Amino acid sequence: MGLQFQPKNPDFEARVRESFARQPMMAHLGVEMTEVAPGHCVLDMPYNRELTQQHGYIHGGALATIADSAAGYAAFTLMGPEDSPLTVEYKLNILRPGAGEHFVAKANVIKPGRTLTVVRADVFAIHNGTEALCVTSIQTLMALAGKTDDLRYAPPEA
Amino acid sequence: MGLQFQPKNPDFEARVRESFARQPMMAHLGVEMTEVAPGHCVLDMPYNRELTQQHGYIHGGALATIADSAAGYAAFTLMGPEDSPLTVEYKLNILRPGAGEHFVAKANVIKPGRTLTVVRADVFAIHNGTEALCVTSIQTLMALAGKTDDLRYAPPEA
Amino acid sequence: MGLQFQPKNPDFEARVRESFARQPMMAHLGVEMTEVAPGHCVLDMPYNRELTQQHGYIHGGALATIADSAAGYAAFTLMGPEDSPLTVEYKLNILRPGAGEHFVAKANVIKPGRTLTVVRADVFAIHNGTEALCVTSIQTLMALAGKTDDLRYAPPEA
Amino acid sequence: MGLQFQPKNPDFEARVRESFARQPMMAHLGVEMTEVAPGHCVLDMPYNRELTQQHGYIHGGALATIADSAAGYAAFTLMGPEDSPLTVEYKLNILRPGAGEHFVAKANVIKPGRTLTVVRADVFAIHNGTEALCVTSIQTLMALAGKTDDLRYAPPEA
Repeated sequence: MGLQFQPKNPDFEARVRESFARQPMMAHLGVEMTEVAPGHCVLDMPYNRELTQQHGYIHGGALATIADSAAGYAAFTLMGPEDSPLTVEYKLNILRPGAGEHFVAKANVIKPGRTLTVVRADVFAIHNGTEALCVTSIQTLMALAGKTDDLRYAPPEA
Repeated sequence: MGLQFQPKNPDFEARVRESFARQPMMAHLGVEMTEVAPGHCVLDMPYNRELTQQHGYIHGGALATIADSAAGYAAFTLMGPEDSPLTVEYKLNILRPGAGEHFVAKANVIKPGRTLTVVRADVFAIHNGTEALCVTSIQTLMALAGKTDDLRYAPPEA
Repeated sequence: MGLQFQPKNPDFEARVRESFARQPMMAHLGVEMTEVAPGHCVLDMPYNRELTQQHGYIHGGALATIADSAAGYAAFTLMGPEDSPLTVEYKLNILRPGAGEHFVAKANVIKPGRTLTVVRADVFAIHNGTEALCVTSIQTLMALAGKTDDLRYAPPEA
Repeated sequence: MGLQFQPKNPDFEARVRESFARQPMMAHLGVEMTEVAPGHCVLDMPYNRELTQQHGYIHGGALATIADSAAGYAAFTLMGPEDSPLTVEYKLNILRPGAGEHFVAKANVIKPGRTLTVVRADVFAIHNGTEALCVTSIQTLMALAGKTDDLRYAPPEA
């Protein structure tokens, strides 16, 4: 998976993991990055009652968030050292409710490009060791050329 | 906005607000419901450093979550007393980074239906009293007939 | 591909092919159905100067049309004898221009359902025997229960 | 509609109409361009039995094609004289069957950009002078810098 891609940045993994570590939203949802490879990224999120909707299932928004981040980092693995990824758009279908012990988002680049990269990201619910596909998505990312991936927004005062 | 729709359930507002109050994810993100009308719903989420991505902007996943919930509740306002809403799919474009003091998701039903309802949901960033469109989306919801909207999933043991 | 699905209608292939033959739009674009299996359908469209856009490539709309029809028929293979398929929505990315001798739309059901079926449909351009992925899409179809698939609309008078 | 946009190319209308006239697919479907303004484009397609699906309604693919072209030309009105538009992706919902005497695709730019432009395109069925919304879509277009909009693909030999 993703093995056919040649990364432009030999340090892609360190760069991806360092960027991921700077995403407070990932910590807020309890997400871990479990795999990084060229054109490929996997995130893992445990079930957490605080992330549920009114029926007790994981909220679709939490599933969307890990699909979005996994896709962004899968695209980022193939970008140059001076590029930063930006989510342009995505579409997802929710195929099953978010029921399980944890949730695994697997993203694979379908088509890399100098400006735009298209990624498929699926989210699986893991229950008693069985995987069930909960979310499938297609995502479009843009490479922002010459942008570092560091903090640039000074948050508003409380 | 939404005024052309005739709700099937005269108690739609109480039902929507009660369901919203049972979504732990909304509390986790600090979201409030500020408007409910037939075919229409508005949610408001303050900027919170915990919900940001690596650049300090609100994570696209948090914006997607309020767009998703606003759309679901806009659809729910038009459903019968025995129906429960389910998000089938959506597509969103992120038009601007999530920079602002708070974020307002406005959802309006485009086409209600017995089984499927199509909703447009936009998210605006509010900064110094100015609104900027951050996210636009189209969402498809399904009415689950004869389902109460109560908790049905027993979460896994920790 | 699609082999894991059990069709409800043993005559699914005849029904799908007969419906396809009644689509004037398919003849207008020169499309042929080359494969039908449970949860799976392949359509083939030759390059035709009349279907191009301003650069001489096949128009994205023609590629969308075969992706749409392939997805609809892939879903139809799994529907009951009294059901008829309806396209609810889809999202597609155009990954490469429509350059080639012919174009092959391959659709595979991701998730069948009593009411909704989700399908992935990809379109490949064939040039000198090589396949290049031009379009990827996710499509949602609805089963209209108790509807025959026959002509029901009396077209307006010219 | 679109009046808030300032075109970079004062000759946008001539350029858009000239490009449209070079799209054989538009002639094949009988489409006319009825409005062009900054960030705005309207196309009109008459009902034609050859463009129908198996129920006698206009094929969703034909509706998608005019939504796609209208969106592309709405984006093109705001591009520079050296840019050419490319459809990146779109998502559409089919809200009603394609029943009517003619079909009007109205596209309006939501967010222009140097590289990417996001457009909403809706298709209305006109029947006895009444408009019914058939298709709603969100489309992403890219400006190809320094590309003329002329023919560049030499079609394969028959």
